[in-house]
Amino acid sequence: MRTITWNTEGRCLTYINQTRLPAELVTVETQSVSRLADGIRRLEVRGAPALGVAGGYGAALSCFSHKNEGTFQGFCHAVKSDAAFLRATRPTAVNLGWGIDRVLQNAMAEDTPAAAYEAALQEAQVIEAEDIALCHRIGAYGASLLPDTCTVLTHCNAGALACVEWGTALGVIRSAVEAGKNISVLSCETRPLNQGSRLTAYELHADGIPVKTIPDSAAAHLMRKGMIDAVVVGADRITPDAVFNKIGTYMHAVCAHHHSIPFYVAAPYSTLDNSRNEADVIIEERVRDELAVCGTRKLMPDGVETINPAFDATPLALITAIITDKGIIRQPYTELAGQDGRNRP
Amino acid sequence: MRTITWNTEGRCLTYINQTRLPAELVTVETQSVSRLADGIRRLEVRGAPALGVAGGYGAALSCFSHKNEGTFQGFCHAVKSDAAFLRATRPTAVNLGWGIDRVLQNAMAEDTPAAAYEAALQEAQVIEAEDIALCHRIGAYGASLLPDTCTVLTHCNAGALACVEWGTALGVIRSAVEAGKNISVLSCETRPLNQGSRLTAYELHADGIPVKTIPDSAAAHLMRKGMIDAVVVGADRITPDAVFNKIGTYMHAVCAHHHSIPFYVAAPYSTLDNSRNEADVIIEERVRDELAVCGTRKLMPDGVETINPAFDATPLALITAIITDKGIIRQPYTELAGQDGRNRP
Repeated sequence: MRTITWNTEGRCLTYINQTRLPAELVTVETQSVSRLADGIRRLEVRGAPALGVAGGYGAALSCFSHKNEGTFQGFCHAVKSDAAFLRATRPTAVNLGWGIDRVLQNAMAEDTPAAAYEAALQEAQVIEAEDIALCHRIGAYGASLLPDTCTVLTHCNAGALACVEWGTALGVIRSAVEAGKNISVLSCETRPLNQGSRLTAYELHADGIPVKTIPDSAAAHLMRKGMIDAVVVGADRITPDAVFNKIGTYMHAVCAHHHSIPFYVAAPYSTLDNSRNEADVIIEERVRDELAVCGTRKLMPDGVETINPAFDATPLALITAIITDKGIIRQPYTELAGQDGRNRP
Repeated sequence: MRTITWNTEGRCLTYINQTRLPAELVTVETQSVSRLADGIRRLEVRGAPALGVAGGYGAALSCFSHKNEGTFQGFCHAVKSDAAFLRATRPTAVNLGWGIDRVLQNAMAEDTPAAAYEAALQEAQVIEAEDIALCHRIGAYGASLLPDTCTVLTHCNAGALACVEWGTALGVIRSAVEAGKNISVLSCETRPLNQGSRLTAYELHADGIPVKTIPDSAAAHLMRKGMIDAVVVGADRITPDAVFNKIGTYMHAVCAHHHSIPFYVAAPYSTLDNSRNEADVIIEERVRDELAVCGTRKLMPDGVETINPAFDATPLALITAIITDKGIIRQPYTELAGQDGRNRP
């Protein structure tokens, strides 16, 4: 089952509503850009590669909804306005905007709204197909880095549910298992939204890959006890000086470095963004309620505020290698050089 | 209001049920050792110093319930059996057993059950009074270590709610504020039981001390951003080679070390245990449900296991200073030497 795909019969986008997992497997079917934007904001669909695909389909849905708009100029104006709205839902993830831009570029090369819609949909479907293929390439490259028997720590969900299928970080694990390696996974629960315990544990367990959930704060302790052989995580954006990923990634990288444990980042090559540096990237601040309430349980007194960043930045110096669909990138990461030609690992 | 105290009128122990905070302030009144043991196991009363007081009162309650047992020998046997039962509820915290032992030693020096009960109750009340006094001494010593204006990170709850009043780590903060210093606190939510967001945020906010809650995994990121000037935590047991405290403490210590941020441990001198080393201490493993369920929300699929240690051990090399009621202990921590005279920082 694909995390996000086009329903040809219903002419609509369909995706797994990840906020309902692991309690129930529910899909959303929609033709509405604002419904998709709301779903992205609420993390019904999340994960950098899946957001690239969602961005692509979002642009296609926008073309569909405006295809009777009259002039091509009016159509383009309306679609660009939708695109800006959609892009603003998750400012840190590079893939969302990348998917939107790629589809729009194809659409705008046409000269009628109807042709633009057809081109947009086709390109979104290409992005979806490419994602599946590139996750398998990431998996194959990454699997070679893992020992034949090992325990891998992962954080958040960079799995099939973060992509179309297979996954990036979990793609590495799946490919290693497929290659006959004996891999156990420790999945950090990943507060505050528990993508680790809700999603990573769910999809690995469903595939029969041994997985245990741990509190985020227990990883360093287990590293010290010799219970973790490698760390593999995903990425939402990679600049020439840092990897942006789920909050907690930096903490694991510091602790892995302290214990001389290899720390790998697995991500599509499209996650690389050499147009800006760490300092230029906005880190999304999420709402207080994510920490203050859990279901019906009140976890914090009224009047107390939170600091709740969705992501952190890990300097490249703490990262052993970046596993992409185009190969493994290592220190000194010259391939990530910025537009000024400089690289800042 | 005291976290735990003797109700002279009702001749019973009374304590705040911390599992109900911050939603409601409820106290438990009991004369039953098994009710108290259950409350300790469920963390209704928790925190190293408070457990010392609870252990003392638990021993006194046991003496009370057996005081018509007949022979002094039979009385002693019954009380010791209760003590072993009570001690097993939280195996890692040194203070619980310390409180039990101290009260029993006084009781056993008598020669009738009735006299033993009187001696036990009196000694438990002395422990309670001493705790209040020693927290103020810890606070005064520790306050001198903090800059006039600073942001302090703390983990779990080493506050008034972990003691009788004032607190150890939060006692340091309260004393610094009382001395006119301008202190802001970042409180890690402290998964899986959220003592940071439920208790630390509650009691500091109630005292008007600026406090914000953060996910445990955000601390390292905020250290890197220069937003944390010092870390102050409590301790459940201090051996000649390590500080045992809430899971996550070690992770913060590694990250503070990486960022050259001072890392302080505040604890009663009675937390020092030179009778064993780190390797001899059992780290309590807590139940799966703490990670799998939150209120009515299911956070993990069925069939997935957890690793959920209550505590971790931080080697002394990562600790800038230990603040006790008898003064500040620093590297090379010779004062913590083991029974073999060796110290292993």
